[in-house]
Amino acid sequence: VTARSRISRVTVTPVAFADPPLLNVVGVHQPFALRAVLELHTDTGLIGLGETYADETHLARLDAVAAELPGHDPYDLDGLRRLVARMLASGESGRAGASFGGMLDVDSALDTVYSPFEVACLDLQGHEAGRPMSDLLGGRVRDRVAFSGYLFYKWDRHPGQSPDEWGEALGPDQIVTQARRMVDGWGFGSLKLKGGVLPPEEECAAIEALRDAFPGLPLRLDPNGAWTPETSLRVANRLAGVVEYLEDPTPGIAGMAQVSAGTDVPLATNMCVIAFEHLPPAIASDAVQVVLSDHHLWGGLRRSMLLGGITETFGLGLSMHSNSHLGISLAAMVHLAAASPHLTYACDTHYPWKTEDLIEPGGLEFVDGSVTVPTTPGLGVTLDRDRLGELHEQYLSCGVRRREDTVYMQEIQPDFRPNTSRW
Amino acid sequence: VTARSRISRVTVTPVAFADPPLLNVVGVHQPFALRAVLELHTDTGLIGLGETYADETHLARLDAVAAELPGHDPYDLDGLRRLVARMLASGESGRAGASFGGMLDVDSALDTVYSPFEVACLDLQGHEAGRPMSDLLGGRVRDRVAFSGYLFYKWDRHPGQSPDEWGEALGPDQIVTQARRMVDGWGFGSLKLKGGVLPPEEECAAIEALRDAFPGLPLRLDPNGAWTPETSLRVANRLAGVVEYLEDPTPGIAGMAQVSAGTDVPLATNMCVIAFEHLPPAIASDAVQVVLSDHHLWGGLRRSMLLGGITETFGLGLSMHSNSHLGISLAAMVHLAAASPHLTYACDTHYPWKTEDLIEPGGLEFVDGSVTVPTTPGLGVTLDRDRLGELHEQYLSCGVRRREDTVYMQEIQPDFRPNTSRW
Repeated sequence: VTARSRISRVTVTPVAFADPPLLNVVGVHQPFALRAVLELHTDTGLIGLGETYADETHLARLDAVAAELPGHDPYDLDGLRRLVARMLASGESGRAGASFGGMLDVDSALDTVYSPFEVACLDLQGHEAGRPMSDLLGGRVRDRVAFSGYLFYKWDRHPGQSPDEWGEALGPDQIVTQARRMVDGWGFGSLKLKGGVLPPEEECAAIEALRDAFPGLPLRLDPNGAWTPETSLRVANRLAGVVEYLEDPTPGIAGMAQVSAGTDVPLATNMCVIAFEHLPPAIASDAVQVVLSDHHLWGGLRRSMLLGGITETFGLGLSMHSNSHLGISLAAMVHLAAASPHLTYACDTHYPWKTEDLIEPGGLEFVDGSVTVPTTPGLGVTLDRDRLGELHEQYLSCGVRRREDTVYMQEIQPDFRPNTSRW
Repeated sequence: VTARSRISRVTVTPVAFADPPLLNVVGVHQPFALRAVLELHTDTGLIGLGETYADETHLARLDAVAAELPGHDPYDLDGLRRLVARMLASGESGRAGASFGGMLDVDSALDTVYSPFEVACLDLQGHEAGRPMSDLLGGRVRDRVAFSGYLFYKWDRHPGQSPDEWGEALGPDQIVTQARRMVDGWGFGSLKLKGGVLPPEEECAAIEALRDAFPGLPLRLDPNGAWTPETSLRVANRLAGVVEYLEDPTPGIAGMAQVSAGTDVPLATNMCVIAFEHLPPAIASDAVQVVLSDHHLWGGLRRSMLLGGITETFGLGLSMHSNSHLGISLAAMVHLAAASPHLTYACDTHYPWKTEDLIEPGGLEFVDGSVTVPTTPGLGVTLDRDRLGELHEQYLSCGVRRREDTVYMQEIQPDFRPNTSRW
């Protein structure tokens, strides 16, 4: 009989990695993206990994949970969740939104704080049982997980830096060039454009240019709520038959329901349905046809599986959301997608945009836009401690302490205001 | 690293165990209840157990799946489900209802055939990992699972047999006597009366007698759809504040919605919401406030966990349904309940009514109406092969081949017709 592990020691390490100047509805990505890396050690010598946001509020909460974890059974996920809830109730109050650059917020930090610990516990379960994480979620439905190439409007450089290898992308031709690089380099079989940056006509033109350049490739456009319902309907009318879905054209369940009632173009969301309590009103009003899961936001892999089951039960599509992330998160996303029978769209990922990582290379390669699901125990990735140390040093020296896309943009363009509902 | 098991051999054994003459809306329990016992053996010497219905149609389907299982990985539950679906598609068509004595039916046999194999695979996973089954479902939320005492109108004997130890129960006083025996013997802290047998006024009187005899004990009444919506509302009005819920007073989602709109008494169901496709219309029409899970019917433990998550998300209560069952099913029910955070009511069980079992004694005892969750690997129960052989011999000799409450009743009372919507 396998020995039952107990958690003996936990470390939470904030890291920073270089991030290009990707534009979005609330501003522009800062020169560094932050993540926190969790390591759960057991008395049996196993290590479980997790990755999450790393703004200071979130880090303080992670540290508070980490301090209480020694002695905990990695299979006791409900006990872990109660522990997180207790810690949050005893600490300072506050919403979880600081992790999201101002683009969205949730009422409770329970799911976001619980998530990386859950993933790390599942990694431990997998190591203890000698089984890949997808096995613990019900088994692999697919051996390879398809991702969508994630296109961004961007500057060619952060102010004061040299140009990055991607160059500027502020119009249709440059977006097509970026897409070509994505498709040639990673083999993506579908493309998503992050919009909400330019007037909707220009973003429609970019989508149409992508359609001309990549006939047959599914396309999506996500302006993060930059439009009014009326504009959303105008765009939906123009892009009907061109996009597989429009993601969050307008803010809020009521606004999305208004758009949904006027178009057959599927509406997707990672903004108005980001917690379980948003599902009943969204379903009752037929506000969205596709929900994007995100295990960092929805409280880990098991709750994301529940979300998937709910979307299947209620006839909704399921896709997957991404923030800037490193390889531990990618591995968790791949296992979740691998175990999700009802995943109806390719997943989003920012992975091609990063130039640094902290897992040992080779475990997660993109071939034809897909990542092969690891079959080794747990997540199937190994921490590179030298790289972890370097990215932690970078965190200490870079000066970024939370995601502030708007603040950073206003340092460069003082009159900038977020484009939410602007057009 | 633990060796990864593969299934090497599968046996499906039909058994029969003595069952008292319990009355219900469609007739009366036959002298023997049937179950099928699944044993999944692995190349690593493990045994996984499952228990399910055993009508001949169901047995043939179980045998067909069993023949395909050798070589299968017990962690590959999605592959198992696809295997069952393939087998059903290639075999004779037909609904799954023969298992339910005519009281309900489902469109597809997929969930009912998949369920015992899934439980047996989870048992194997638990044995391989050295972990109790509840750990594999997310961890124990509770160490003890509360059950409700299940009261039945009944005759004192099957025709031609000697009286059983319970005696006759056809009026309020006899029901109270039966309840006293249940509470004294097992310590139940809540009581359910199976109705649909006598005119509703008599069943209301029995509930009121129970209220007088057991002040403070939660009570439920389940007539299995014996009433019209109008009668249901009359009963709800009479029993408001007396019952914790009314279960299936009238058939169908539309009828239940009509009742629900006219009363604050919570309505529960194990008849109009018995598959995932029934949830959207039931929720949209607010037809029920409590859903009874049943892993035999809903496709195993993981899908029952999904059902629990859906009820929590949509603000519904969750209880648990029971058919006549043996100890393997009880163990699975206990692990499911143990891992369900949102279980809002004590579970149903027929367990006190059986006088025979096929698991080694001692693992599952009722104390104060609750069963302590096993913490040994897997289900935590061991098959008694002598008893299995005896109950299989009894199956071979008893002549019962499917549950036929109405046919049996009509042998005794030729003019009997099911009471569905009768009053």
